Amino acid sequence: MKPYVLLTNDDGIFAPGLFELSLAIRDIAEVVIVAPDSERSAAGHAITIANPLRVSDFEKNGDFFGYAVNGTPADCVKIAYYAVLDRKPDAVISGINLGSNTGINVIYSGTVSAATEGNVLGIPSFAVSLATYTNPNFKVAANFAKKLLPVLLQNKLPAGTCLNVNVPNVKNKSEIQGVKITRQGKSEYEDYYDKRTDPRNHVYYWLTGSKVDVEHEPEVDDVAISQNYISITPLHYDLTNYDALSAIRAWKL
Amino acid sequence: MKPYVLLTNDDGIFAPGLFELSLAIRDIAEVVIVAPDSERSAAGHAITIANPLRVSDFEKNGDFFGYAVNGTPADCVKIAYYAVLDRKPDAVISGINLGSNTGINVIYSGTVSAATEGNVLGIPSFAVSLATYTNPNFKVAANFAKKLLPVLLQNKLPAGTCLNVNVPNVKNKSEIQGVKITRQGKSEYEDYYDKRTDPRNHVYYWLTGSKVDVEHEPEVDDVAISQNYISITPLHYDLTNYDALSAIRAWKL
Repeated sequence: MKPYVLLTNDDGIFAPGLFELSLAIRDIAEVVIVAPDSERSAAGHAITIANPLRVSDFEKNGDFFGYAVNGTPADCVKIAYYAVLDRKPDAVISGINLGSNTGINVIYSGTVSAATEGNVLGIPSFAVSLATYTNPNFKVAANFAKKLLPVLLQNKLPAGTCLNVNVPNVKNKSEIQGVKITRQGKSEYEDYYDKRTDPRNHVYYWLTGSKVDVEHEPEVDDVAISQNYISITPLHYDLTNYDALSAIRAWKL
Repeated sequence: MKPYVLLTNDDGIFAPGLFELSLAIRDIAEVVIVAPDSERSAAGHAITIANPLRVSDFEKNGDFFGYAVNGTPADCVKIAYYAVLDRKPDAVISGINLGSNTGINVIYSGTVSAATEGNVLGIPSFAVSLATYTNPNFKVAANFAKKLLPVLLQNKLPAGTCLNVNVPNVKNKSEIQGVKITRQGKSEYEDYYDKRTDPRNHVYYWLTGSKVDVEHEPEVDDVAISQNYISITPLHYDLTNYDALSAIRAWKL
């Protein structure tokens, strides 16, 4: 029997990356799509508690494609599990995101948060992102997701773990150097707020900035991608810094 | 010279918990407040990139109280640092949240995400939450924040670490048993979506549920609070599950 797989994303249900992912995964799985009705990039692990959610049918090329939700990626996984699907899915795949989710971006990423929410619910889950904002070729990433899914279901993840997959943007699969199991890098941001004036002469600010890579070890997510490796980072949601416990226990409080 | 301290929260700039925190911290620091203009609970680490942000003066009892931002808690810290403050603050304090931020709630918490954003920016930061939704007594938590701030500034946190402080809701300080340095617990949620029909006969869903504690060790955040200890958990934002690396490296990919 084919596995039953929930697909979602943070770029919105109309995004090409999700469509390409669905084409690849439909070959080997029964697919159901529950995704945000609008772009929710940088949604982090936000969930909607102060407002109601609505679930609408979404069509593509005249056929039913999936369910659109007026919420975040984590909302989509939650509401799929609790209210939309008729049974627990065998896997959650979130993506294919336009743009990498590596280094510090992992904490802001709606794509990753959907996989984390699957992890919270005890479902094998991974996020998949393409490391480009321009001229995306989703095929290599979509085919890798199709390759990874049965391996994931067969091997089982360690408890409380999901995977964060980032794929270099290449024209041909042959350019991929291989797969590296990596750690989240310490890349940083140099942000600033562009201060502007609206047509009514009121000030507003718009966030912009650029990522700064500060590490060069091959086992770091961004470094692996820059060398044309597919990067897979196992993530959990225990944010405790265990290494800091003893130092803080020595404080006089 | 008094330290320069940025206060924020996720309950909104009008929230009593933030006001009580500001009263306590003003005794020992130069305070500036930059907080969301509306409730942003469960905002996770969302940031606003697809829309502009606005910064408005917010008054309380006829006096300037702080800056209100139409964004998330993480937005508030970012825009304070990059566009509102005239210099880098010595500390960021986020709270006092109405409701604990422990166990799995940590990943959804806007309160915690503001402290994390301070951490990302290299500023000593902590979140402080009161473990109740009813009859809050913010005084004990506010006074503990006032006690913690100079200790934090004197001892310095390990790199890339912020603190998640949760305070039991007690009437008198004497009921507090002490301070425990804890780890994030594995408490879970039993969620469901209440399915309702709106006045136009359209279906909507509203998330509800209850937290399920699954651990009983004294060094767990929720357990410490239940025993009337103040819980302090050191957090970082490296989500890599290092223990899972070798298992996944053994997969055939």
